[in-house]
Formats: sequence, C-alpha cells, structure tokens
Amino acid sequence: MEGASPAIILVEPQLGENIGMVARAMANFGLSELRLVNPRDGWPNEKAVAAASRADHVIAAASLHATLDEAVADLNYVLATTARARDNFKPVLGPVDGSAELKRRSGLKQKIGIMFGRERFGLYNEEIARADAIVTFPVNPDYASLNIAQAVLLMAYEWMKTGLESASQTAFEGPDFPPAERHQVQSLVDRLERALDVRGYFRPRSKKPKLMDNLQAVLTRPGFTEPELKVLHGVVASLDLYAPKEPRRPAGHAADTTDGETGD
Amino acid sequence: MEGASPAIILVEPQLGENIGMVARAMANFGLSELRLVNPRDGWPNEKAVAAASRADHVIAAASLHATLDEAVADLNYVLATTARARDNFKPVLGPVDGSAELKRRSGLKQKIGIMFGRERFGLYNEEIARADAIVTFPVNPDYASLNIAQAVLLMAYEWMKTGLESASQTAFEGPDFPPAERHQVQSLVDRLERALDVRGYFRPRSKKPKLMDNLQAVLTRPGFTEPELKVLHGVVASLDLYAPKEPRRPAGHAADTTDGETGD
Repeated sequence: MEGASPAIILVEPQLGENIGMVARAMANFGLSELRLVNPRDGWPNEKAVAAASRADHVIAAASLHATLDEAVADLNYVLATTARARDNFKPVLGPVDGSAELKRRSGLKQKIGIMFGRERFGLYNEEIARADAIVTFPVNPDYASLNIAQAVLLMAYEWMKTGLESASQTAFEGPDFPPAERHQVQSLVDRLERALDVRGYFRPRSKKPKLMDNLQAVLTRPGFTEPELKVLHGVVASLDLYAPKEPRRPAGHAADTTDGETGD
Repeated sequence: MEGASPAIILVEPQLGENIGMVARAMANFGLSELRLVNPRDGWPNEKAVAAASRADHVIAAASLHATLDEAVADLNYVLATTARARDNFKPVLGPVDGSAELKRRSGLKQKIGIMFGRERFGLYNEEIARADAIVTFPVNPDYASLNIAQAVLLMAYEWMKTGLESASQTAFEGPDFPPAERHQVQSLVDRLERALDVRGYFRPRSKKPKLMDNLQAVLTRPGFTEPELKVLHGVVASLDLYAPKEPRRPAGHAADTTDGETGD
C-alpha cells in the first residue's frame, strides 16, 4: 500500500537560489524527485547548488524538461498550485485535502506530482488545464504571494503529515510522565500541612479548613508528575529544616481576629 | 471569543535577510507582532527591510529586546520550537496540536507567543525552560534543519488553519457544478447512440447491448457537470453533421462475424 512520493514540477523557475531552496524544503520533508521545465537561467545552475546546501542530492537528481507536457507525461494525477481563482472546471482543494488525495492515489500505485509556477507570474491557464485539480493555500488575502520555496515547503509538509499516524505524532517525544498517583500528591500536601502548622500559618484557626482546601487545590491543579513532586518534596524538606521545637502559639487566642501572617 | 494572534519571538537572529523572510512568512498568514531579542547585526537592519519586501510593515513594527525574559514578560503562554529532543519536563507537541493550544488560549484572552532560536544553534536549554511547551516539526530525520523563516512559516500556516471552519476551506472556490442531473447524461448517451447507429458502429448487432453498456459506463463514471455535457453535446453534434442519408447496411448480414470497425 506504500506508494511513491509526489514529483515536484517547477515550471520555468527564474532564480537558481529559489530552486536550491525548493530542494531544501523537499529534503526537509522527505521528497526527492524534482522536475524542472525550462529554467530561465539554464541547467545545471551553480546558485541552485549553493542554495540547496546539504540537499544537493535533490539538485543532482533533478530532471530537465523542454515542456510541461514532457515533464508530466508519465504521471497519473497532477495538482497545480495557484494563489488566484481561475475560470475553469477544476476542483479547488486546500493543501490538506490535496495531500490526502495524493496519498490515496499513491497508495493505488498511481504516479503523482505537484506543479508550481514561475516566481513572477505563477502558472498560465493552459498549464493549469493539464492538472487534475488546483491547490491553493489559506493565505492572508492582503499578502497572498507565497515564495515558491515556501509553497513547496507547505505541500511537502502536508505530504509528510499524511504519513503520520496522527497529527499529534512528533519526531521525538516529551517525557512520558503521567500525573503522579494521587497518594503522592497527598503526601506532599500532608507534609506541607505539618510544616505550616508548627509555624502558625493556619490562623485564625477557624479558617484552617478553607486554607487547606486552597492549598489542596493549588497543588492538585497542575497535575504534577512524580519527578516534579520529588523536586517539591525536596524544596519543602529544605524549607522545613529549622522547625521550631515547640509549635507556635496556636492562633485563635490573642490573634484570632487577624487573617494570615502576623508579620514577624 | 476572538483573541489576539501569537507574537513571534526571534532569539538572537543572525542574518537580516532571515528576519525579512520571517516577516514575509508572518504577513502571508496574517501575523504581525515580531519581537527580536538581541539580533546579532543590530537593529534596524536594512537587509531585513529589503528581504521583507511588501511585509515591511511587520519589520517597522518589530520590537527590540535585550533579553528573552523581557521579550516574553507580558505573555501568558509561550511555545518554544526546536528540532532536538531536550532533557526537561516540557510537553512536546506537533505544530497542529501546538497551534490548537495557542488558539484555545487566545480565545481565553491569554497573550501567546512562539519562540524561535538562532539559525545556527537554535534555543539553549535555559531559554526553552521559559516556555510552557515545545513544538517540533515532523521533518525527515536525515535532513531535519529547517530554515528559521520556514519554521515560522509552518507555525503561521498552522495558526491560520486554526481560524478556518475546516481544513477544506479555501481562499477561493472551484466552480460549484454538481454532477449533472441523470437525464442530461442520458440525453448525451441517446444522441451518441443514434449518431453511431447510422454509421454502423454497433456490429455485430448482437453485441449492441454490451457496447451500449460500455458507452453508458464511460459517460457516467466521470460525473460530468452540466457545462461539461454541453461541451460534449456540441462535439457530438459537430461530428454528426455529415450523417449518411441512409443508415449503413446493418451489420449482422455479411459482416456479422467481424467485431468492431470494418476499416473503410
């Protein structure tokens, strides 16, 4: 069921630097087949190699074509990218749906490709007519012109995403620390309660239940992991080192009307 | 429920050209708040303005900060982008989930931002420690280094997508021509049947039902729209202009054993 990746077809690209940047964008997301239709400054192109940096294998393997028809001759399904509405019968897809359709056809062993137009004019209507569907990007209409390498990057990125099990899959993973078991949170709460009690934190005494509720909530809400709780236990233990020999005079006598700290 | 867009924070960016390209990527997807932490070549930077092209409003409004802490001081929730796994307690998100979380918090009126590191080294661990979560891109592991403007582009693109009703929404739409009503397809099939009949296409006569089944299938499968059927009607009408006065001698007599065309 694993088919080939799409060919990237650049129609009359103008700047070698851009071809190199396209190669980089392709390499970033695992594409390797670059087809060039009549590049303005000829081929091979040193600036393209320089701009490709470590993606020079894509440049070295690029094929050169005199016409678009030649460049797409062996493909079964081709998308054309454009920023402008065209007056034709083509379906218009966003990059997600376009990539999904490419993936589906790739799975059926169809040969697939994506056409990108010249930096300055994009694709002509008669070129778009060769494609099966149009892809357009959800850009800000006031600033719609995507650089050609950026357009390739977005399609290559969406193509890569079609190969992920889910959009949540990442190249590496964060620590898989679930929130600690509840008794671990509770032992921190208990430790804090004891440490605070001997320091006279709970005053007036009548408010202790409410103050404990708050403390419990503050320490529960973050969903602390076990390693994080260990850090916090260490911090509390350190702060608790110099406990008074005798608990402070319990609040609720002289200072019973005072809320919170006594100020000493 | 509509909150602000994320600030883009570049930490010690090196090349003015890249800052300009970042501004373009932001403008493409409707972001406008750029914060620069200690750019290597100083600020303002002419190369940044030149590379920004028509996105110079983003450059003009960029704010300059001496430290990362200053640059993120007013933000409630910050993502850090990185291509490498880090040994810390941060959750790691893909760009889709990261953008969804930004959107959720934006809707709650939280101020949000995304940090990007230096071109050469990315972000240091103590910088990432300032962030609430890590975002990493699903790149090809053999060619993982994304240009800073490309990384900004992908996050800006995913942010833009969170504002779409669905991933299928496009900036412009294809013709909303549903497949034609079935009787319209049928009238083309009927017209073709008559035109072919007088030319003796259906031979041997006994195979006509099978040949008609095939023709019906070929003309039904594409789901032609009404305008497309009009084109095809015109084509058939034109080809049918010079019909024989008398239908050709029906197959099934002398030529009954020959399949298909007779060759004249």
